Amino acid sequence: MAIIVQKYGGTSVGDAERIRRVAARVVETYQTGNQVAVIVSAMGGETDGLVALARELGGAEPLAREYDVLLSTGEQKTIALLAMAIDQLGVPARSFTGIQAGIRTDGDHQRARILEIDSGRIQGVLDAGIVAVIAGFQGHDDDGNITTLGRGGSDTTAVAVAAAIGADVCEIYTDVDGIFTTDPRVVPNARKLERISYDEMIELASLGARVLQTRSARFAMRYKVPLHVRSSFHSETGTWVVSEEEVMERLVVSGVTYNRDEAKIRVPGVKDHPGVAARVFTPLSEAGIVVDMIIQNVSHDGTTDLTFSVAREGYERAMAIAQSAADEIGAAPVEGDTDIAKVSIVGLGMKDHAGVAAKMFQVLADEGINIQLISTSEIKVSVVIAERYTELAVRALHAAFVDDGAAEPTPEV
Amino acid sequence: MAIIVQKYGGTSVGDAERIRRVAARVVETYQTGNQVAVIVSAMGGETDGLVALARELGGAEPLAREYDVLLSTGEQKTIALLAMAIDQLGVPARSFTGIQAGIRTDGDHQRARILEIDSGRIQGVLDAGIVAVIAGFQGHDDDGNITTLGRGGSDTTAVAVAAAIGADVCEIYTDVDGIFTTDPRVVPNARKLERISYDEMIELASLGARVLQTRSARFAMRYKVPLHVRSSFHSETGTWVVSEEEVMERLVVSGVTYNRDEAKIRVPGVKDHPGVAARVFTPLSEAGIVVDMIIQNVSHDGTTDLTFSVAREGYERAMAIAQSAADEIGAAPVEGDTDIAKVSIVGLGMKDHAGVAAKMFQVLADEGINIQLISTSEIKVSVVIAERYTELAVRALHAAFVDDGAAEPTPEV
Repeated sequence: MAIIVQKYGGTSVGDAERIRRVAARVVETYQTGNQVAVIVSAMGGETDGLVALARELGGAEPLAREYDVLLSTGEQKTIALLAMAIDQLGVPARSFTGIQAGIRTDGDHQRARILEIDSGRIQGVLDAGIVAVIAGFQGHDDDGNITTLGRGGSDTTAVAVAAAIGADVCEIYTDVDGIFTTDPRVVPNARKLERISYDEMIELASLGARVLQTRSARFAMRYKVPLHVRSSFHSETGTWVVSEEEVMERLVVSGVTYNRDEAKIRVPGVKDHPGVAARVFTPLSEAGIVVDMIIQNVSHDGTTDLTFSVAREGYERAMAIAQSAADEIGAAPVEGDTDIAKVSIVGLGMKDHAGVAAKMFQVLADEGINIQLISTSEIKVSVVIAERYTELAVRALHAAFVDDGAAEPTPEV
Repeated sequence: MAIIVQKYGGTSVGDAERIRRVAARVVETYQTGNQVAVIVSAMGGETDGLVALARELGGAEPLAREYDVLLSTGEQKTIALLAMAIDQLGVPARSFTGIQAGIRTDGDHQRARILEIDSGRIQGVLDAGIVAVIAGFQGHDDDGNITTLGRGGSDTTAVAVAAAIGADVCEIYTDVDGIFTTDPRVVPNARKLERISYDEMIELASLGARVLQTRSARFAMRYKVPLHVRSSFHSETGTWVVSEEEVMERLVVSGVTYNRDEAKIRVPGVKDHPGVAARVFTPLSEAGIVVDMIIQNVSHDGTTDLTFSVAREGYERAMAIAQSAADEIGAAPVEGDTDIAKVSIVGLGMKDHAGVAAKMFQVLADEGINIQLISTSEIKVSVVIAERYTELAVRALHAAFVDDGAAEPTPEV
């Protein structure tokens, strides 16, 4: 007998018919002799409706505490309905809100962090042969206030519950077949990965792959919860996300990702002496703007250029802050560019292979693509390029690094 | 400074605009220097949508526990939205679900009874100058399960909270102006009562007046919570429901009510010896069917007729049970009649006036209305008549007992 955690997102429980299908899948898993805990999101569209009501009655910044009280009703609806549907198939089920599931978080509304799960009640229900149906995305703080976890929160709930009850696997059901070597809409021969390490998953998620959020992948790594990302439409194996030693095939590059949601800001004519960079980046950080990549040119005539990238969402604010910093330090007017994309390659095997970055730059050069910014880690290389080259770059990198027989540099060199 | 509890039903919070209006009213009460706790229902229509989903996924009898988890999301939405709207008007507000408000009930889902309110958190919030916005209709049992109180549950929550925090008044906002001497749709010169006793309110509610449920009126009486039933559309005084000694004007008849939701069953040819009635009524009671009025004719040739009334809802089941009991005791085939109505007069002053029932019978006789069943208590007389005479009977009784100058019997005698 295994302990299995299953997580179904908003699309999978979008209407009564889909909830019935999820129920059938849960029952199938249960009837093959497993203990099953299910984590669900709000029905697709439900959250949007609640957010609209909150804006209408709560203005631009509705009370954070009440926003969570409101939003948490979404998953509460789903757990009750799914428990009913499972019961209709003859299998006992019981629902748990965040509070009932003992999901203790900090008090940071809308982006609360799980501190601990008091899983006694869930465990008791599972031991009694009952399916536990748990609301994702929500918890409670020490004062009994309802909190929500923010984006991708249901994945985090699933991983945290899996860790707390010592599950054998945490299955993340989604509308794709698993984790792919790249976006199949861009590269038709992208292939599904059998296994991938937590580290790679975290990089892929943070670099633009949308299947799983970085935070839940980190959580899974920390608690060594094996994840199985798979399709809710059929029962074929998806992609297992496991620890490094369980990954058989250490690919040099397991994935090519892209992200169009960034923008680039350049501060030219910055006097090249200590403390200048801090005067630009400190006010940005104080404003809550996360700077992704930074380069500083070689000094020329005692001045240099500072270039960095930020999320496109905060671009206008970042420009204003950078401009006022530039004025203060006597730099030239700042220049912004939103027509950029970040393209990255990720792979555990990079650790053992030298020259991966160099090969990447060559592949892009061969396509006539100019590289604007570069950032690397032990298992990834990211570059910022002009947005219009995104697909071209992804296809070229996938052909060069991932496709079978593509271990050699492309012949056009 | 007074402590004021206000309760708004589903119609009053039916959409964003109405929630804003309720918020304005709450803020007005708060700003005149009062502590305010508000109890709200689900937005009008919300509950119907949830019930439909439950039927779709949970079948004819959805899991009782999960049904409550589902339905309780309705009020949870309203409390969050109302708290936001109050905040937008510059007054601090905090929402409470049933669990957060400490509303402890028994575990009888869908018709739970409030056992106790641990009002410490509500009290703390009120003392801090914050408006408490509390979900009506819901509570939690000792195992932390969500429970709902059943019909009229939000009124009960309001009265219970008022009792727990020692409120000076519990205001029940509704779409009518108060409690009327009878249904104004039937008798245009029905008048609004200034004050009425708990006992009268309980009788009126149980006999068909729809403004307040019997259960909340009983609760108010037990804990001596003054109720003020008033309109949510204007700020004029409605009807105060208070203890008997606070009612100045002891009317012989303060209200005339009618109820078309009953049916009559007659078991003829019952042998007149001890224990026979029990063999009819025990199986009915075991089936959860509440019998309202019972008459047994004078015995004739050793047999008698048993006639009783039940809610029309359970009529078919009651007929089947009565028939099988009749077969067992060798009675004749049972006869049913759903075309009946119960018409009642209620008034504290009856205690001091003899002949009220006799006068009622005479008034009905004068209109040619035959009386089928009779039941009386210290402060009410009810009769069952053919349904088609309902309005005629109500008008005649209102004219004879309630209208000014109608203290004398009608002249047509």
